[in-house]
Amino acid sequence: MIIVKGGVTAPRGFLANGVKAGIKESGKKDLALIYSEVQAVCAASFTTNSFSASPVKVSKDHLKSRFHQAIIVNSGNANCANGRDGDKKAALMAGYIAQTMALEPGEVLVASTGIIGRPLPVSRIERAIPSLVSGVSRSGGGAFAEAIMTTDTVRKEFVVKVKIGHSTVTIGGACKGVGMIYPEMKVARHATLLCFITTDADISKKMLEKALSGAVEESFNMISVDGDMSTNDSCMVMANGLAGNRPIRRAGHDYDLFIGGLKYLATELAKMIARDGEGATKLVEIEVSGAASLSDARRAARKISTSNLLKCCIFGEDPNWGRVVAACGSSGIRIDPDRVDVFLGEIKALSNGTIAKGYDKEKARKYFREKDVKIRVSLKLGRHSAVAWTCDFSKEYVEINSEYST
Amino acid sequence: MIIVKGGVTAPRGFLANGVKAGIKESGKKDLALIYSEVQAVCAASFTTNSFSASPVKVSKDHLKSRFHQAIIVNSGNANCANGRDGDKKAALMAGYIAQTMALEPGEVLVASTGIIGRPLPVSRIERAIPSLVSGVSRSGGGAFAEAIMTTDTVRKEFVVKVKIGHSTVTIGGACKGVGMIYPEMKVARHATLLCFITTDADISKKMLEKALSGAVEESFNMISVDGDMSTNDSCMVMANGLAGNRPIRRAGHDYDLFIGGLKYLATELAKMIARDGEGATKLVEIEVSGAASLSDARRAARKISTSNLLKCCIFGEDPNWGRVVAACGSSGIRIDPDRVDVFLGEIKALSNGTIAKGYDKEKARKYFREKDVKIRVSLKLGRHSAVAWTCDFSKEYVEINSEYST
Repeated sequence: MIIVKGGVTAPRGFLANGVKAGIKESGKKDLALIYSEVQAVCAASFTTNSFSASPVKVSKDHLKSRFHQAIIVNSGNANCANGRDGDKKAALMAGYIAQTMALEPGEVLVASTGIIGRPLPVSRIERAIPSLVSGVSRSGGGAFAEAIMTTDTVRKEFVVKVKIGHSTVTIGGACKGVGMIYPEMKVARHATLLCFITTDADISKKMLEKALSGAVEESFNMISVDGDMSTNDSCMVMANGLAGNRPIRRAGHDYDLFIGGLKYLATELAKMIARDGEGATKLVEIEVSGAASLSDARRAARKISTSNLLKCCIFGEDPNWGRVVAACGSSGIRIDPDRVDVFLGEIKALSNGTIAKGYDKEKARKYFREKDVKIRVSLKLGRHSAVAWTCDFSKEYVEINSEYST
Repeated sequence: MIIVKGGVTAPRGFLANGVKAGIKESGKKDLALIYSEVQAVCAASFTTNSFSASPVKVSKDHLKSRFHQAIIVNSGNANCANGRDGDKKAALMAGYIAQTMALEPGEVLVASTGIIGRPLPVSRIERAIPSLVSGVSRSGGGAFAEAIMTTDTVRKEFVVKVKIGHSTVTIGGACKGVGMIYPEMKVARHATLLCFITTDADISKKMLEKALSGAVEESFNMISVDGDMSTNDSCMVMANGLAGNRPIRRAGHDYDLFIGGLKYLATELAKMIARDGEGATKLVEIEVSGAASLSDARRAARKISTSNLLKCCIFGEDPNWGRVVAACGSSGIRIDPDRVDVFLGEIKALSNGTIAKGYDKEKARKYFREKDVKIRVSLKLGRHSAVAWTCDFSKEYVEINSEYST
């Protein structure tokens, strides 16, 4: 596996673009498009929020098509809690692209991100369609990644190349999302995290769904910025087969190579989201090992990663690891408090439930000054482990989110 | 029911005190005592955190005694994650009081609050015991309420008087806690919310446990400051029978009068905690009505009350009610999105899942400037409802918690 620069247009046959449609009050780019020159199979994972946004509903419906060729995305408006008007407008977005690019509406997927409960200015989108479509290009991945951003401070793109047989398969991705991040996505049959992955792999729709599900579970579904689950979280992957690899139709070596690449890419993109979390100054990794079950390990890692108190002390560079203990203990998993160890980086803070001998607070404080902070909890009950990622919690987070809708 | 000034020494026969033992680095009062002049029955509700603190373990054990006469409390150190040394020291705290006041150790309950993972300076406690004990008085309720504070900005006390038959029963309470507040306490067989309630009611231990369980479920177990559950949450009630009412031994009219008073007191104390939440500028009440079950109503109300995004926009006085929708939808309860209404005070924002006709954002913005903000979600699915309380989320919260242990 090798890592190269680029984004969603790195795989063969993918074009993209991002333009200004006037949805965002800031006047920045807010409408984006990915287009595959040939038919592609598609899998997607969406939010499990009961109030799923209109684009989520429309995309779930369109996923029934065998093939897809385009994904249209707007930022600046979530098109959520807009009732039937919202559903109609989300369908219109797909319809505009279908009409302009000579596709079936079902071959077009839709995603939105931005404020909830505001009518989508769909006529502005309609007016921007000609320039959006005519401008798609092999070099448009960056414009795409830019146009899907909301409070993100950096573009988030990643590309891996995997050798499968004699072919090189490229997987490219772009994502956005730095607030309302606590995804719990389920493949197609479910941030505002938006992630778009393209690949020229030749893989069946069924195996692509399986690969996406596995990759999302260990990446996006393990990150948190604020513990708030969005109504719009969507992760979509398109595979157009242009790499010419032996077709992947079942589990096996080729599939393992592909999912290895996909997981790596998804994890790197997920970490970019946590690192760029609203107001964040640090990336925090929480590993829970020795759990009695995988679900226990995941639950504890996620619970610790959403502790506001822990995130505040990481912002303050104060190694107050008692908050790790409290959060872990409140996760409802099987724990023997007298066996638990807690490590801050390589520094053992808690040993068998009590302060570790030789624990040096000043050393821990120095470690907390690093940009990447790792915390490990060893439960010593079983062989299961899980890793979650989050960021610290700063005053800027409050500032960003106290005036978002104004 | 009438409300009078005072705290834990308002009911007949209760004395209290609060002194400086040198546990807090600030040098403020940090050791407190409640004493009943006659034997009292006691019920208590403790944290369900797996890492329960040593005082919680000791108090659970001591609750096996039929009667109790004293509760000793320290602030500034949680005595949690201290292993056997912590357990021994918590027992020593009860032992010192028992010895000095000629009680059995099992007749003394213990509670602690403060930082986790620091050895308890029990010799300082031992040195302060004589002045703590000799100073107990009928006017010591205020000193008690002060000595249990950590980052609290105000003392939290409340007293109600209930007429039961020809007798007047007084219930007094004091509590503390403004951070690491997301209690889920279970009666005796489980903050850092600490709450101490005294009453001169004549009531059996069994009925007192039942009353406390009911009162805690609708009050303390419905508040949140930061969604972080403590290892030390404890709510204790002592009833010494000096009111001379007809003894309450079973459910019935007298019990209903008593629990009515207890619930009112517990709710008012719980609201004081939410209002004084770390960095808080507002009290926020979340009501979920029309739920299919009580557990659905409670779960949705608590989920909305822990939304960092919602709490930030309430701090910013920005009526971004889409965050109510997102949080409600992520609670996992039964919802029909197309039937949900959301009210901001009396202002209807969402009607049947879409923006309410005539919704006036400026009016909503004006409402959000009030000190008490009420949000109501009507699910229109059933007849169950629940109310949760929280506070807004300010930059000061981050400031307070980024440097707590230093």
